[in-house]
Amino acid sequence: MSSRFVSLDTSDVRFPTSAELDGSDAMNPDPDYSAAYVVLRTDDVDGHEGHGFAFTIGRGNEVQSAAIAALRPYLVGRQVKDVLDDLGGAWRELVHDSQLRWLGPEKGVMHMAISAVVNALWDLKAKRAGLPLWRLLASMSPEELVGLVDFRYLTDALTPDEALALLRQQAGGRDERIARLEKNGYPAYATSPGWLGYSDDKLRRLCREAVADGFTQIKLKVGADLDADMRRMRIAREACGPDIRIAIDANQRWDVGPAVDWITALAPFEPWWVEEPTSPDDVLGHAEISRRVAPIPVATGEHVQNRVVFKQLLQLGAVSFLQIDAARVAGVNENVAILLLAAKFGVPVCPHAGGVGLCELVQHLAMFDFVAVSGSMDDRVIEYVDHLHEHFVDPVRIRTGRYLAPQAPGFSSTMRPESRTRFAYPDGPVWQQHRTPPPHP
Amino acid sequence: MSSRFVSLDTSDVRFPTSAELDGSDAMNPDPDYSAAYVVLRTDDVDGHEGHGFAFTIGRGNEVQSAAIAALRPYLVGRQVKDVLDDLGGAWRELVHDSQLRWLGPEKGVMHMAISAVVNALWDLKAKRAGLPLWRLLASMSPEELVGLVDFRYLTDALTPDEALALLRQQAGGRDERIARLEKNGYPAYATSPGWLGYSDDKLRRLCREAVADGFTQIKLKVGADLDADMRRMRIAREACGPDIRIAIDANQRWDVGPAVDWITALAPFEPWWVEEPTSPDDVLGHAEISRRVAPIPVATGEHVQNRVVFKQLLQLGAVSFLQIDAARVAGVNENVAILLLAAKFGVPVCPHAGGVGLCELVQHLAMFDFVAVSGSMDDRVIEYVDHLHEHFVDPVRIRTGRYLAPQAPGFSSTMRPESRTRFAYPDGPVWQQHRTPPPHP
Repeated sequence: MSSRFVSLDTSDVRFPTSAELDGSDAMNPDPDYSAAYVVLRTDDVDGHEGHGFAFTIGRGNEVQSAAIAALRPYLVGRQVKDVLDDLGGAWRELVHDSQLRWLGPEKGVMHMAISAVVNALWDLKAKRAGLPLWRLLASMSPEELVGLVDFRYLTDALTPDEALALLRQQAGGRDERIARLEKNGYPAYATSPGWLGYSDDKLRRLCREAVADGFTQIKLKVGADLDADMRRMRIAREACGPDIRIAIDANQRWDVGPAVDWITALAPFEPWWVEEPTSPDDVLGHAEISRRVAPIPVATGEHVQNRVVFKQLLQLGAVSFLQIDAARVAGVNENVAILLLAAKFGVPVCPHAGGVGLCELVQHLAMFDFVAVSGSMDDRVIEYVDHLHEHFVDPVRIRTGRYLAPQAPGFSSTMRPESRTRFAYPDGPVWQQHRTPPPHP
Repeated sequence: MSSRFVSLDTSDVRFPTSAELDGSDAMNPDPDYSAAYVVLRTDDVDGHEGHGFAFTIGRGNEVQSAAIAALRPYLVGRQVKDVLDDLGGAWRELVHDSQLRWLGPEKGVMHMAISAVVNALWDLKAKRAGLPLWRLLASMSPEELVGLVDFRYLTDALTPDEALALLRQQAGGRDERIARLEKNGYPAYATSPGWLGYSDDKLRRLCREAVADGFTQIKLKVGADLDADMRRMRIAREACGPDIRIAIDANQRWDVGPAVDWITALAPFEPWWVEEPTSPDDVLGHAEISRRVAPIPVATGEHVQNRVVFKQLLQLGAVSFLQIDAARVAGVNENVAILLLAAKFGVPVCPHAGGVGLCELVQHLAMFDFVAVSGSMDDRVIEYVDHLHEHFVDPVRIRTGRYLAPQAPGFSSTMRPESRTRFAYPDGPVWQQHRTPPPHP
């Protein structure tokens, strides 16, 4: 008998990170990093489970969990092999469900829910294959990879034939690049020094530590106070020395005009990129800012809702670095589409990470990009934040500023059961101690 | 003692419209029109309640309800007068909550939930004022109206001062326009004839009925089959005669290239506009299609997620008609912003309606636009679909193809309690008879 999916279980897991101002920026002063977590179980004797999650920053994580639960009837009862053998088809079914798509379409809570479930399916597929996800993806033929992608709304920028040609171009060097990754890892940059809530002394200390740890790029949050930003940029530059790249991140703080003024004021400190200067929905705004602050590069993507918006950012030349997130667009499949778009337009992908578990996930996508899509690590770095990795069964491993290639089968998405219990919201023991403040005074 | 909000209750109400193929189009073959419904209650002796809802088409309505429930702590316990006297402030608090905004930002399920609650607040405010909403809005000064709008991410296209100037320009003629509206109503167009699921005979009969009822514009759904679309356009043109405007609506069916080809093939039938040719997220795609199918006008908006995307459509000249929806962007306040943007760019607003209750809501916004913002009814029409009005306490009234101006206090958003009970999902009596089919085979 072929095995079937027997359950899709969700849980609301929240970490009280706001207590330490970890993760504070101009738009998110007090995040409680959270996961709307999903476990897919089958009746297969192998006992493997698929784990995935949507990342949120606290309030609303229960809404995200409810959205994941709404996908239960799409999987439970179906044959595992049918679904895992055609994850392109499964993706289309979930994303284009004619009733659910009204809740987006392809954006926000429902799309992130699909992300969690799609990623859990990939985790399961990789565990069953006995491979880390990046290796599983790197073992797929160009034709199979193109079959994962939904080209709806993309064909004015990228056709299936063009995608196939891009992938075939890189097919030859895959083994050599896999070997390089397994030997040297993938470059990371450090965001931990630069949260807005930290004191100048803590900023200075963390900058020095990042350099000592081998990072060649750090990032500072900006956008709350220009004088403070200039002071913090100066401190960071002094602490890091002249050779370290210092990126800045405004977390959507500005309108177009104020963005240009603020960035121009910080230009003397030579920011490596300026990230999320304005609304992630404003492709024209990003293009206008890019044009007016050149040669300072603009980066964005962690809040970009789907491949259609990424397509437009690329069509306009609005970004010089494209930042994918593993859990906002609809999972692995849509990120493959976005990696292909970036390759077509020649824009380096520098993934967003941090939060809880985002580093664990996105490292697989960056490494797959290197092996099979862009074929390059030039000017490419994965964000690294040293938070909450201890809650994962297969946590990221960082050595001298680089992500080591994951070796365990799966998507590195499995959170320790004891962490899921301890940080369960609102009934877990940790939340019995933390009183949740009301959202209004 | 000043009164406070004492409860925010949600309910999941679904109508089994898919049984009759009402509402079927190229992307939504079998919608069950649904409302994630919210009732705000206070301890005021006036006994007024604020009613609002997010509209969905079936599956996922429970997710939408959960999102509305997540807003409960933002209102319950607060003083009613404080909130209702500063609905601009209340809007900002809900939309910019630093944790909830991660779930969007400003899009999808969470934004639609805010829409439902913001609209319920306006319903309550209008009931307390003893005015239909459109009259309440029309009684506000230009300064008060500008105070409702969040200009974040808009100032490269529209500043508060420009908005104020636009509103002051129309302030003089308000009384005369109110009198015209109360006498003659506001033009409507009829979508009921054109659903894809209907037979040719039914299409012909409904076209004739629409003309006999006084409508001067109808709309056909297209995009599933080109030959069938040409045949249906021919039937509609014959049945309506040469003087009736026939708009077409593709419901996001096409990529850019195929959109241009399909619309070009339908051009001989002189469509009045082509609606939603592609993804609502693709502002560049809309601009490209507009350019290539000119002079056929492009319309969009029912799925446009927020004011930032509307801004870009207008900046690019990508649409000739802008279609607001009362319950997708974050309620009245954001629609005031969008009406102001449209006025700035000189683009007529022709609201989306239909579904359940959308006609009831959006008529107020179109009438407010006429009285206080655009000052014009030229080439402006509100969509009208003759479904489910019987479930509302203050249903729309249509005479000779025009919406009569609502007279009852409030936002016309109150659904009859017996309808909410009967169609409650999944436990109401109607759903005890209809078995819900599984979403997959």
